[in-house]
Amino acid sequence: MTGAEVLLRTLVAHGVEVCFANPGTSEMHFVAALDRVPAMRGVLCLFEGVCSGAADGYARMAGKPAATLLHLGPGLANGLANFHNARKARSPIVSLIGEHSTKHLAYDAPLTSDIAAFAGTVSPEIHRLPSAAEIGPTAARVIAAACRYPGRIAHLIIPADFSWSEGGPVGEVSPPEPPPLPVVPSLGGEGNWGLLLGGQTARGRGLALAARLAAVGWNVFIDRNASRVEMGRGGFQPERIAYFPGPAQAQLAGLTDLVLVEAKAPVSFFGYPDEASYLAPATCRIHEVSTPEQDGLAALESLTAGLPEAPLEDPPPLLPPASGPLTLAAIGQAIAALLPAGSIISDEMVSSGPPVLAALRHAPRFDYLPVTGGSIGQGLPVAVGAAIACPDRKVVVLEGDGSALYTPQSWWTMARENLDVVTVIFANRRYQILDIEMRRTGANGFGPWAEAMVDISTPLLDFVKIAEGLGVPAVRVETVDAFVEHFGAAMRQRGPRVIEAVISAP
Amino acid sequence: MTGAEVLLRTLVAHGVEVCFANPGTSEMHFVAALDRVPAMRGVLCLFEGVCSGAADGYARMAGKPAATLLHLGPGLANGLANFHNARKARSPIVSLIGEHSTKHLAYDAPLTSDIAAFAGTVSPEIHRLPSAAEIGPTAARVIAAACRYPGRIAHLIIPADFSWSEGGPVGEVSPPEPPPLPVVPSLGGEGNWGLLLGGQTARGRGLALAARLAAVGWNVFIDRNASRVEMGRGGFQPERIAYFPGPAQAQLAGLTDLVLVEAKAPVSFFGYPDEASYLAPATCRIHEVSTPEQDGLAALESLTAGLPEAPLEDPPPLLPPASGPLTLAAIGQAIAALLPAGSIISDEMVSSGPPVLAALRHAPRFDYLPVTGGSIGQGLPVAVGAAIACPDRKVVVLEGDGSALYTPQSWWTMARENLDVVTVIFANRRYQILDIEMRRTGANGFGPWAEAMVDISTPLLDFVKIAEGLGVPAVRVETVDAFVEHFGAAMRQRGPRVIEAVISAP
Repeated sequence: MTGAEVLLRTLVAHGVEVCFANPGTSEMHFVAALDRVPAMRGVLCLFEGVCSGAADGYARMAGKPAATLLHLGPGLANGLANFHNARKARSPIVSLIGEHSTKHLAYDAPLTSDIAAFAGTVSPEIHRLPSAAEIGPTAARVIAAACRYPGRIAHLIIPADFSWSEGGPVGEVSPPEPPPLPVVPSLGGEGNWGLLLGGQTARGRGLALAARLAAVGWNVFIDRNASRVEMGRGGFQPERIAYFPGPAQAQLAGLTDLVLVEAKAPVSFFGYPDEASYLAPATCRIHEVSTPEQDGLAALESLTAGLPEAPLEDPPPLLPPASGPLTLAAIGQAIAALLPAGSIISDEMVSSGPPVLAALRHAPRFDYLPVTGGSIGQGLPVAVGAAIACPDRKVVVLEGDGSALYTPQSWWTMARENLDVVTVIFANRRYQILDIEMRRTGANGFGPWAEAMVDISTPLLDFVKIAEGLGVPAVRVETVDAFVEHFGAAMRQRGPRVIEAVISAP
Repeated sequence: MTGAEVLLRTLVAHGVEVCFANPGTSEMHFVAALDRVPAMRGVLCLFEGVCSGAADGYARMAGKPAATLLHLGPGLANGLANFHNARKARSPIVSLIGEHSTKHLAYDAPLTSDIAAFAGTVSPEIHRLPSAAEIGPTAARVIAAACRYPGRIAHLIIPADFSWSEGGPVGEVSPPEPPPLPVVPSLGGEGNWGLLLGGQTARGRGLALAARLAAVGWNVFIDRNASRVEMGRGGFQPERIAYFPGPAQAQLAGLTDLVLVEAKAPVSFFGYPDEASYLAPATCRIHEVSTPEQDGLAALESLTAGLPEAPLEDPPPLLPPASGPLTLAAIGQAIAALLPAGSIISDEMVSSGPPVLAALRHAPRFDYLPVTGGSIGQGLPVAVGAAIACPDRKVVVLEGDGSALYTPQSWWTMARENLDVVTVIFANRRYQILDIEMRRTGANGFGPWAEAMVDISTPLLDFVKIAEGLGVPAVRVETVDAFVEHFGAAMRQRGPRVIEAVISAP
């Protein structure tokens, strides 16, 4: 049995059953072994950033790692931006990287590079193989490292000759370590208390417990960059921390105490000349009852011991909007009205987000996958992975037009795998967030050359053609009626669709 | 004057007049300063790999650096694959990377990462700013580092507050250092002599001098990964070293001595189970008369002192092919017949290359920009940069269909800047090189799952729609007549065009 086959058998023995791949010559034995280990599903992506982002989305929804298979240092390089996002999401990922054969490494061939240097930018977990015979046990250690709560990227660098040589035993499975239990002091009482939820506590039982604290007067918030948040009617919906410092500071103003559960004290996305980076009031005491590496759910159980179940105050459901200009608010209303319960939303709307997210509080319960690391190009790949993790749930990507162009190759994999993913492109034809950031950073003088760096309308991007060219049916809509018609139809059908929504006003 | 403006003025004072940019919040002051320094041309790219590849192509043709402007660690990450190729091409590039403000760096914001770790994967030249007042002199040192012969990537990490604070003086220009002169021994005489040309000697005067050695019996070759090679009728055309070990070893068989000029001893691209990585005969003596960092042209002048000018033996020009199936040979013949003299060809044909390149020996003289680092996705961006460096020359990209999908965003910039670039897509609808590599690496069993990792025909990629969606007129051709018609028309017109050539046979 080749080392490649031993590796595959070790992966599937540990429940790693999907591999997002963009292979090259050094990975041919791994590819060949796929036919001998049918429990592993190879998913071809035409760009490496799709692989890494899909593995992130898969991990967020499946709660376990997928593998990625990338080709040497430069192939890994193309996956790093979405690995950065996955690192900030704390997603478990088994990152397999093919390397030249050990003999060939002595020569400085064109594709030779320092793979560990690339890998180290997103994770210190870089595992090497002492021999082909060690591939099984080493892979088992890599998987265990990836799965250590809450999750991380763990790399395995695989010289080609260790793939094609005789491998040793399949790596043994040992039960995963549970997350460490935090020691929770007695908290509450005098003062104005806040609670910030991250990690596993931004959904399900975590939210239900947090609602009990809200019912007794705590101010509950969600970490802006929590990897997965449950939203919509049918459950507690705390506010997320706002993007810009001013509104975020307003949310936290007056708190005397802020309790962190699998979250860190909130900081702003960017620094600005005359604004704060640290968002809580200077006088606010911070209580880290659970780090992101501890069992925050246990901490919440402890914090809420004795508190009664909280009554649910749901916002009303919405009807689809009447005719009118295709504003962000109208799009949000339409999505909230038409989204099936149990959907998954991958959000990379950037500047278009706030009005849409406000409306989505009225949608039936859904899982929300937000931006985590801020590197643009995650929205579409994360949806690929989420759809593979949850084949029975509708996945909707809410995507900026500028953002969509970093990893559009995702659409091809959606078509290839017939994934049930509907993409809504918010076509405002600008890097519109930069309009705002330009003013906020105090950069004056939006002359024609600066304007050219944020204007993406020349030439006009035609997302219908781009998506169709990559195999996904697509339509452009410019009115509310057309959006409601096509988004509604997409919700009733299965399979990938793209809707380019030309925004007429904020 | 802001630090950003001082930086821009320092760049243009040193002749760095083009900046391939994909900016974000941290780079807003640089963007704003573009309007105050009109000598700098900002070129917006919708993906960072286009920026880095375009800077590589620009450097290869202009012989001086462009700047790239990327956003934080993850933005840089997306540019690394083509920076890897630029590193192997030894292209000078001034890599500007925005960083969070120094104050904001204390907080672990979502986009915080170790920028120097990303940067170090492709160059040890990583410059930091001690203060905004030092931005001019520091930038001058970065430019000097990039330009040290033959060229390298030099990074400058720019915290946002150093861009928005008051800058100091513009960096002073000092004359560039000439490349060191090698000491060339007296060579030749007994034995079977070979000469391997790289760097600046693979064109112009270098080839003319090498022809004199060929005329006295030397075997002259071109480094397979030389960054820029002059080819076609009207000058000496040595063979390039072949891609696979067997044919390359056959080229070099029987040599007693191999003289290296700005080149290294040839090694194969990949290692295979039972084949050599080192390609020259074991008994062949290697004479490194010029390293890639020395003046190889001076070495050739010395080697050829006293030898007469060599007569030119040109292959005959070709006529366009008659009707028939659209084979690679027919496409090559058509391009050779219709290409205007003085064109530039960016080649990323991968498996489709050999028959086309054989025909191109009959084309009028052109500059050929080959794969250097082997990371796929350079063909289109390199053409963007070459077209900006040489606005009066026709640029043709010969691009595999699989390869085209790594950086298709290049087409948008071609349309935006109305660049005179014609792309020919070789649509064989497979990662066909992997068919070959799968067999060569001894990976048996091309079952349906392995097949799925090299088949890109499901769904079919429609390059006409993809290119049109990105703003470039496009056509699909399936016959020789149609290829000749549309390629010929594209050669007579100006502006970007895409021709998807559906290959009917090798």
